[in-house]
Amino acid sequence: MTGRKVTTAAAPSEAETGYTEHLVSEVGKISSRELTERVIERARHAVLDWLGVSIAGAQEPSARAIQQLLTAEGGSPTAQVIGTPHRLTARQAALAGGIAAHALDYDDMSIGGHPSAVVLPAVFALAEELDKDGPTTIQGMLFGYEARKMVAAACGSASYDRGYHGSSTFGAFGAAMGAGRLLELDPPRLRHALGIAGTQASGLRASFGTMSKHLNVGNAAAVGILSARLAEAGYTGDTTILEAPQGFAATHNNGPADFDPTGPGTSLRRRLAVEWLVFKPHALCGATHSAIDGFQLLREQHAFSADDVDEAEVFVSAQHLEVCDIAEPRTSVEGMFSIRYAAALALAGSATGPSALTEERIQDPTMVALRGRVRVTPVPHVRNITMPTEVRVRLGDGEELKARVNALAVKPDNELPRQWETLKAKFVGLVSPVLGADRTDEIIGLVQRIETLGSIRELTDRTSTER
Amino acid sequence: MTGRKVTTAAAPSEAETGYTEHLVSEVGKISSRELTERVIERARHAVLDWLGVSIAGAQEPSARAIQQLLTAEGGSPTAQVIGTPHRLTARQAALAGGIAAHALDYDDMSIGGHPSAVVLPAVFALAEELDKDGPTTIQGMLFGYEARKMVAAACGSASYDRGYHGSSTFGAFGAAMGAGRLLELDPPRLRHALGIAGTQASGLRASFGTMSKHLNVGNAAAVGILSARLAEAGYTGDTTILEAPQGFAATHNNGPADFDPTGPGTSLRRRLAVEWLVFKPHALCGATHSAIDGFQLLREQHAFSADDVDEAEVFVSAQHLEVCDIAEPRTSVEGMFSIRYAAALALAGSATGPSALTEERIQDPTMVALRGRVRVTPVPHVRNITMPTEVRVRLGDGEELKARVNALAVKPDNELPRQWETLKAKFVGLVSPVLGADRTDEIIGLVQRIETLGSIRELTDRTSTER
Repeated sequence: MTGRKVTTAAAPSEAETGYTEHLVSEVGKISSRELTERVIERARHAVLDWLGVSIAGAQEPSARAIQQLLTAEGGSPTAQVIGTPHRLTARQAALAGGIAAHALDYDDMSIGGHPSAVVLPAVFALAEELDKDGPTTIQGMLFGYEARKMVAAACGSASYDRGYHGSSTFGAFGAAMGAGRLLELDPPRLRHALGIAGTQASGLRASFGTMSKHLNVGNAAAVGILSARLAEAGYTGDTTILEAPQGFAATHNNGPADFDPTGPGTSLRRRLAVEWLVFKPHALCGATHSAIDGFQLLREQHAFSADDVDEAEVFVSAQHLEVCDIAEPRTSVEGMFSIRYAAALALAGSATGPSALTEERIQDPTMVALRGRVRVTPVPHVRNITMPTEVRVRLGDGEELKARVNALAVKPDNELPRQWETLKAKFVGLVSPVLGADRTDEIIGLVQRIETLGSIRELTDRTSTER
Repeated sequence: MTGRKVTTAAAPSEAETGYTEHLVSEVGKISSRELTERVIERARHAVLDWLGVSIAGAQEPSARAIQQLLTAEGGSPTAQVIGTPHRLTARQAALAGGIAAHALDYDDMSIGGHPSAVVLPAVFALAEELDKDGPTTIQGMLFGYEARKMVAAACGSASYDRGYHGSSTFGAFGAAMGAGRLLELDPPRLRHALGIAGTQASGLRASFGTMSKHLNVGNAAAVGILSARLAEAGYTGDTTILEAPQGFAATHNNGPADFDPTGPGTSLRRRLAVEWLVFKPHALCGATHSAIDGFQLLREQHAFSADDVDEAEVFVSAQHLEVCDIAEPRTSVEGMFSIRYAAALALAGSATGPSALTEERIQDPTMVALRGRVRVTPVPHVRNITMPTEVRVRLGDGEELKARVNALAVKPDNELPRQWETLKAKFVGLVSPVLGADRTDEIIGLVQRIETLGSIRELTDRTSTER
């Protein structure tokens, strides 16, 4: 009832012992690595994409609500709330920034959730408060991504299946680690920071479909800063928070078997976590992206028009049907989770940014007719949404076209220049309506040379809507 | 991975449907009740006890750390951080206040955790910001206590057994409801507030023994204000957060069987939750209190001294041995969880406030010798720490004395005047070293007439250490 347990609980198995310590030690090895151009290039992509979705997302209702509340609270104006006129404390900027970054559900993805929407609002807000330069900020990012990925990798999918929102629960560790790096915490304090973050990790999938989904992400970012700051001040947490008998893994999973501290992704690799990010080129559910890319590819190769399409078919996993198979979408949320609508957009050669998700567009008779000619077929050999999708089109003249695409695969290094162009186009589409064309270009230029910035404020300042 | 589930999950059983709605509706019935003297008297006790542990707790290291961090952040000075010189935003004051209230582990208890340490920092800080009067603040308290209790009652002990810190996870709902009442949210918005709070509920028992245990409580209080404020601004959450298939009960328990929305405590009763609070007269683990009270009673009745004691015995549950059976305590934390040390204090007629927990006192040879004569015997008919404890003393002259006491029982109405005297003594012991005797008396006087205060600030103002 009130006592704290003083008896020793069952000893953790050998494999579990010290995963929190292991994580801090592994992530710490990044410090001694040179920031290679390959890593910096990936970091630029992440920053550009995050800034784009954040600046546009900051105009959304859930983001506006928190901005209003936080500006009413007030606080030392040490960090820019991206895409707004406001400067607030780092913790407030991280809270508002995380909400904005995830408000369009258009931010990047990787194992166990959305990395940048949690890690970057914390890292950039604190870097700004501490007036850090570009390379130091990138180091904070790398630490944050890596810690988040390692927690997600060891915990696996059980906690998500149970109902926890992995983006925020795993993300809190990443945000704390990124913030801890900027504060130059030593390993023992980093472990306390993880302990402090882990006891605050929260976010339920029951919130999906409400604004609280965005709040989950913002909270995790803010938790990161609070945890690192408290650890800096000597505050203590459980330094074995991940593997402790009643720690994060035990409470958030279904049992010890779900926690694998030695499996894939639980150690530092040659390729860092920042190199495993996948960006969403389309403002729709990620599970629809392969179908969209497949049809766009066929259009590029064969130059047909929507009118030429007699019938189209998408071969997907059964998981797709659970996630994004709304057959007759009417609202923007429904459109976002409709493979048939996604296919229709691609077949029509339409834009797939946020403008694709207006109710007018979704209910447009041409689009309704076109999606009526799309069949969605689940096939056993596609086991889940991360596997390649096959698409087929039969044209009016009887010709049949096929493509097989995996939009959720990480781009290899040789495709990075093309990815950058895609991300720039996405950025312009999102940001120019908010900040105008000149400022949009200016920010792209700053991100392009982020590793040369003497102060990260040179970049974040430019995202203000009031300068 | 990225999609939100749009398929309908298995329908909840009939009994589960609408517990969130039920809770809002039940708690809402308090509005139409008259604030009876009986309820006001209980509320006074809760406020006095909470202010006492908060003012003393605010001087503890974990409380100082957060005060420093928050004052560095800054914010509109609308609410007093109890027991400090600081005024901050309501949300900051709730965070710091929750940490302080629980820092000594000396705050009140009821089903599922510590009610006042979570609910009151949120309610008082917001009441101050909104400049509410005494009766309105009491209404907020009552709403908060009731909601917290109803969540705890329906969820049962499974989530605590699993590793969640019930004081904070259940408490977040109470804090949100109390804050929502002060903001005069209508029932639909109150449900959103609960949804927003539920997705933020956090706190792991793995943090016990670290400062993060206090942080859990502070966070829950702050979550309450944020949730109510966001709901006021039109922010949305899952309005079925408690019973949803992947909602709070499902994620935090072991299975649907652990959630009983119709069991004891899930409806509004004639006696409100505020009438079920138990106060800790001793600064030791609650499970030691019956033993202390038993020996103190025997001393009162038989006027023996420590030297007269040949042997003493305490008959407890096996649960006691897990919780507070440290045989050879040396540090203050160990002393707090040692029945033998607790018994020795009582047998010696010593004070049982925080001064009992210094290392000097715990290692004092007289006390060490005395606790060496205490036996702790588990007996099957005492099933857990909330049941009466029997104590026996054999004096040097061969006389044997016995008593049977349950210190964790709620005091009946006719014992309230005596409880008030006990709480006043506890308050004076805690507060006069911080604020001086005059101010201590003044605060007691204000709490005594809390229902007549035109502004709650008249009371909270006086807890400042800088006036």
